Amino acid sequence: MRILGVDPGLRRTGFGVIDVQGPRLTYVTSGTIVVPATIPLPQRLKVILDNLRQVAQETQPDVAAVEIVFMNVNPASTLLLGQARGAVLCALADSGLTVQEYTALQIKKSVVGAGRAAKEQVQLMVQRLLALDGVPAPDSADALACAICHAHFAPLSEKLGELNYQSRTSRGRSRVRAGRLLG
Amino acid sequence: MRILGVDPGLRRTGFGVIDVQGPRLTYVTSGTIVVPATIPLPQRLKVILDNLRQVAQETQPDVAAVEIVFMNVNPASTLLLGQARGAVLCALADSGLTVQEYTALQIKKSVVGAGRAAKEQVQLMVQRLLALDGVPAPDSADALACAICHAHFAPLSEKLGELNYQSRTSRGRSRVRAGRLLG
Repeated sequence: MRILGVDPGLRRTGFGVIDVQGPRLTYVTSGTIVVPATIPLPQRLKVILDNLRQVAQETQPDVAAVEIVFMNVNPASTLLLGQARGAVLCALADSGLTVQEYTALQIKKSVVGAGRAAKEQVQLMVQRLLALDGVPAPDSADALACAICHAHFAPLSEKLGELNYQSRTSRGRSRVRAGRLLG
Repeated sequence: MRILGVDPGLRRTGFGVIDVQGPRLTYVTSGTIVVPATIPLPQRLKVILDNLRQVAQETQPDVAAVEIVFMNVNPASTLLLGQARGAVLCALADSGLTVQEYTALQIKKSVVGAGRAAKEQVQLMVQRLLALDGVPAPDSADALACAICHAHFAPLSEKLGELNYQSRTSRGRSRVRAGRLLG
C-alpha cells in the first residue's frame, strides 16, 4: 500500500509518500509546495490544487492521509487555513483518492509515542522509522508522520471504516436544485 | 459580460449567472448545490467542486464573483466554512475563471443601497433588478446579488485591478521544493 500524507497550510503545504508492506515502511518521496503570498487568494489555492494533483499523478498513491489542522485563536487565520485545507482535500478527492483524517495528537502518538511531542522529536522519529540518511525538513516530516500514522491505523480502519462509510454514503445524496422563484 | 456569482456554504452553495450589457442586467440561471451532511468531509467538498465546475462548464461565464464569508464565533464552524469556500474557489480557478471577492457589506450596498439590509430586502431587490417573475430563493438570491455587485464594480476594477494584479504576480512565483534531508 502506498500512502500520500499531507500537512496543509496556505504558505507551505508539506507532502510525503511512503510504501507499506506488513510492518515495513519505505520512504518514496517528500516535499513542500511553497505558495507565493503576493498573489490573490483564489490563485494561491489553485497553486495547491495543481501541484498536489501533480504529486498524486506522479506518485500514484492508494490512499491519502491529512492532518486535521488546529484552529488558530485568530478567526481570520482559521478561515484562511480552512481554505487551504479545502484546496488540499479537493486535490486529493479530485485525484480519486480516499482521504483519512487524523488529529495532531493521533499522529504524534503513533510516531513518537506521546501526544505532546516537539517538532524536532517528530522529525527525528520520522528519520528513524523510515531509515533516512538525514532529518527531513519540518513540513515534509509532518506530512510523512501523517502517512506513518495511517500505516498504523489502516489495518483497523480498513475493516471498520469501509463498513461505516458504506452505511453512511447510502443515505446521503447530493443534488443541484434549480433556482426557484417563490410566490 | 457574463458573471457567475457564488455564495459559499458547506451545506448549501448558491450560484447565480447574469449577463451584463452596459447598464442592462439579464438573468441567465441560478440554483443551489445541496451537499449531504452524512458523507465524509473530503467528499462533501468534492460535491461542491464537481457541481460548480459543471455549472461553469454549462454557463460559460467570463468572470466569477464570490462573497467573502463572515467568520463564525465558533472556530470549528469557521474552519468548516473556510474549507467549503476553498472548494468553491478551487472549482472557479480550475474552470479558468478570474475570481473577484466582495464583502457582504459591498454586496448589500450595491444591491439594496444599505449595508445592513435584511435577507428579504436582498431577495426583493434582486427580483426587481433582474425583472424576475417571483422572489428567488435565499441562496440563489445571495449568489445573484454577488454577481450584480460585480456588474457595478467591474468597470472600475477592470482598469485598477488589472494593473494592481500584474504588478503583484510578477513578484510571486510558486514552486515545489523537494524534501531536503538536513544534516
